[in-house]
Amino acid sequence: MDINDLVKEIKRKKSFLCLGLDSDISKIPSFLLDDPDPVFSFNKQMIDSLNEIITAVKINTAFYEENGSKGWITLEKTINYINSKYPKLFTIADAKRGDIGNTSNKYAKAFFETLSFDSITVSPYMGNDSVEPFLKYKNKHTILLGLTSNSGSRDFQFFSNNSSTLFKEVIKSSKQWKGSDNLMYVVGATKSDHINEIRAIVPNSFLLVPGVGFQGGSLKKTFENGANKKIGLLVNSSRSIIYAGKGSDFLEKSYAVAKSYQIEMEDLINTLDH
Amino acid sequence: MDINDLVKEIKRKKSFLCLGLDSDISKIPSFLLDDPDPVFSFNKQMIDSLNEIITAVKINTAFYEENGSKGWITLEKTINYINSKYPKLFTIADAKRGDIGNTSNKYAKAFFETLSFDSITVSPYMGNDSVEPFLKYKNKHTILLGLTSNSGSRDFQFFSNNSSTLFKEVIKSSKQWKGSDNLMYVVGATKSDHINEIRAIVPNSFLLVPGVGFQGGSLKKTFENGANKKIGLLVNSSRSIIYAGKGSDFLEKSYAVAKSYQIEMEDLINTLDH
Repeated sequence: MDINDLVKEIKRKKSFLCLGLDSDISKIPSFLLDDPDPVFSFNKQMIDSLNEIITAVKINTAFYEENGSKGWITLEKTINYINSKYPKLFTIADAKRGDIGNTSNKYAKAFFETLSFDSITVSPYMGNDSVEPFLKYKNKHTILLGLTSNSGSRDFQFFSNNSSTLFKEVIKSSKQWKGSDNLMYVVGATKSDHINEIRAIVPNSFLLVPGVGFQGGSLKKTFENGANKKIGLLVNSSRSIIYAGKGSDFLEKSYAVAKSYQIEMEDLINTLDH
Repeated sequence: MDINDLVKEIKRKKSFLCLGLDSDISKIPSFLLDDPDPVFSFNKQMIDSLNEIITAVKINTAFYEENGSKGWITLEKTINYINSKYPKLFTIADAKRGDIGNTSNKYAKAFFETLSFDSITVSPYMGNDSVEPFLKYKNKHTILLGLTSNSGSRDFQFFSNNSSTLFKEVIKSSKQWKGSDNLMYVVGATKSDHINEIRAIVPNSFLLVPGVGFQGGSLKKTFENGANKKIGLLVNSSRSIIYAGKGSDFLEKSYAVAKSYQIEMEDLINTLDH
């Protein structure tokens, strides 16, 4: 997807909400379990219900791999369903991949060609030649881990010397990589104090921000510190939306939570227009 | 697998060779393409041919994911075949996973339970809570990226301050994690000059060493700098073994390359006995 089309959709929907499909068979409504593919049925209903108030869908590969090849079939059915029915939704494979060049080539093929995702999350630890194979795809986006939302982010991402800190070094270096126009960055909402610093390094890049909702990050602070003229943010929520209800009204409950985020986003976007 | 059983097998076979199944449908002998699952057929023949001179098999998930769920079926068939026919081969999912805790839980389940691998490679970037979910499995092993074999390893793994360098900091910190007895480390053979430094930090841990063969690392230097009393090394070769031949004698050609490594390993192991 061209980034300008994503920006258009965000402005049209007044939403930069990303729906995280961390869909876990042990947590979805039990009456769906009679379905031949309960997780796909859950995902499909969730997307059908929410597609007008979200702009992106993030599929967390771990929750599908847990079920082996059967899970991968569910993953394929989900991405194919989105691509055919809602082609304007920006799709993210939350896969945290990254390996030596010839292997990253294969991962890029897997997620950009075979599965036709618009983007994938990638770990920076192995450096430029582990990421560049993803960057050569036009209109495909590589979302590099910058500063993550979990407590373990403190272990290495803040490793510092006199001139820099690892997460800043990662973001700064990545700007020199071939195809760096196709980069976005993961920045946890729980780290909103650092979003301005990251914004200063990459003023024009999109940031994918997990950690609002269940993990406790603030949407308002994230926006104030991270928005740019093109909004430049996708804020993800997974568990707080998809597990809002367990009964026959689960879709209404999920919609209510997602809508409350969207309304807050609309208010924030409107502040930019003045 | 209990680590002592792995050591026993290494000493019995006089081999610490790991066969890397980076099996690519575009590179395997063309006469296999008539098979309903050519890559599985290739893997099966490779393992049947080499099982007595290797002690480990590493399956690189990227090469399977390239083919979507069909590739995952091939991956499942391959690991199931090894586990049922050669249960003493140490199996490695070369998957480079790692995510926030509840997601890493799912990856651990995927690879240790659903697929029954003995071990998985994991990226350290997200810190302790992204790795600990893997460490709680008894007799399952988590192979943390330390210093990788690719050129991009220089980008961040050598990021330094007065007291440490990132790859050393990763290895040092990881020793404090819950379940750290189940850790092994990836150290590229192309970085053999640094293996002693890593050995000094983790004298007892196994090191998985890729980069011998196609990537140009030296087996002798790796052994001299990295072996401990329990050998403590698994040296992987992928492309140089599995693509040694393309004709009807491809198995003989692969065997010859693998055997030459094993003979060199036998000589090196024998030096320890004196």
